[in-house]
Amino acid sequence: MHRIDLVAFDADDTLWRSQEYFDNAQAQFEAIMAPYIDLERSDVSAGLYATESRNITLFGYGAKGMVLSMIETAITLSDERITAGDVHRIVRLGKSLFEHPVELLPGIREAVKAVASKHRIIMITKGDLFHQEAKVAHSGLADLFTRIEIVSEKDSKTYARVLKECEVRAEHFVMIGNSMRSDIEPVVALGGRGIYMPYHSTWAHEAVTTQVCDPDRIIEVDQPSEIPDALDRLEQCTP
Amino acid sequence: MHRIDLVAFDADDTLWRSQEYFDNAQAQFEAIMAPYIDLERSDVSAGLYATESRNITLFGYGAKGMVLSMIETAITLSDERITAGDVHRIVRLGKSLFEHPVELLPGIREAVKAVASKHRIIMITKGDLFHQEAKVAHSGLADLFTRIEIVSEKDSKTYARVLKECEVRAEHFVMIGNSMRSDIEPVVALGGRGIYMPYHSTWAHEAVTTQVCDPDRIIEVDQPSEIPDALDRLEQCTP
Repeated sequence: MHRIDLVAFDADDTLWRSQEYFDNAQAQFEAIMAPYIDLERSDVSAGLYATESRNITLFGYGAKGMVLSMIETAITLSDERITAGDVHRIVRLGKSLFEHPVELLPGIREAVKAVASKHRIIMITKGDLFHQEAKVAHSGLADLFTRIEIVSEKDSKTYARVLKECEVRAEHFVMIGNSMRSDIEPVVALGGRGIYMPYHSTWAHEAVTTQVCDPDRIIEVDQPSEIPDALDRLEQCTP
Repeated sequence: MHRIDLVAFDADDTLWRSQEYFDNAQAQFEAIMAPYIDLERSDVSAGLYATESRNITLFGYGAKGMVLSMIETAITLSDERITAGDVHRIVRLGKSLFEHPVELLPGIREAVKAVASKHRIIMITKGDLFHQEAKVAHSGLADLFTRIEIVSEKDSKTYARVLKECEVRAEHFVMIGNSMRSDIEPVVALGGRGIYMPYHSTWAHEAVTTQVCDPDRIIEVDQPSEIPDALDRLEQCTP
């Protein structure tokens, strides 16, 4: 039995809604593109994902990179026929991603408070530094976390660095998040444990996983209210 | 006399060249815009700076925000007449900002090593997390720093947080950088000291300062080789 010394929460789609804003932006993007392409022969969504995947090594994650990839996709898919007016619509669409309110998931505030009353908690989120800081500030949750880590990639190397800085061994660490690929897999690989809380919408990039569930190390929950109990169960079993 | 317990280096234009890439991109942007505007009546550079200043509260600092502001400026200054081909040139121009090699300033490696041999050193840089991490990785200097802080804004609040996390009081801290506004002013306001090493080119945003030089607290140097001696002088005087 390993006691739990540190619990980390992912942010986007774990604490607050995020993916549906991106999904909505993508639907509007597809509508802007419709007049320029033969929808039977061209897949706007696949074209955008291909551009984003290529650009991720340059831009990293986050909304600004997504908007730049949208503009690039619009230019290439339209064979450079897209008008400045429609590019302008894409720019405004992109800016709207930075302006929406931060909507906490139902029950998450209570769940975070309950966990914080028993454990030291931190937030580990990836993406755009400025945008994530703004969301943290607007969430009203910042004071509950002893540390907020905004990172460029959530892989084992990143988790190992954060754990080292927190002076906690992986066996005593639990990560809570909605992405098997970014929140659970790399933590379990280090010897840690995870609470997987899937969100109703997942970006294709995050859906890639080879993680097999191991009930001693990973507990799946449906909603925030189940998190405190899942932590107790993880603490009681011997991984 | 206050001993020095912690020395921090800024990165862009202090450790490696940065502003000239932005200056160069801006010159190319102006060339792309030339056919669309009456150069006697319209100032592309002022238009871009106005858009960037408006967008900074949404996008923060960094190259991705600059490219998005360039595209927005191009659309509005051309009255939505700019072609997709020219928007494409701006996108490629933006991507080139992420692809250039990291060129250290002459003598900086030796200066950083000399300082690191006597003091605990960290790096504090603002801008895009992913882009800055890539530059740190390519610089070959990362191992000399005990901590690398990539922040969204370099104000007194940020410096106070970093100093708290490093468990150092401002009186025992010296910041080295090329921006009076971002590197020196907020540190001196906290009671710390600074070494100001101006770069030959400065973004208009960073040139805004009301800081008056106080030789006991701020030493201006011309080049990296003068940094170790400037630190010794700061340590010897009583602020």
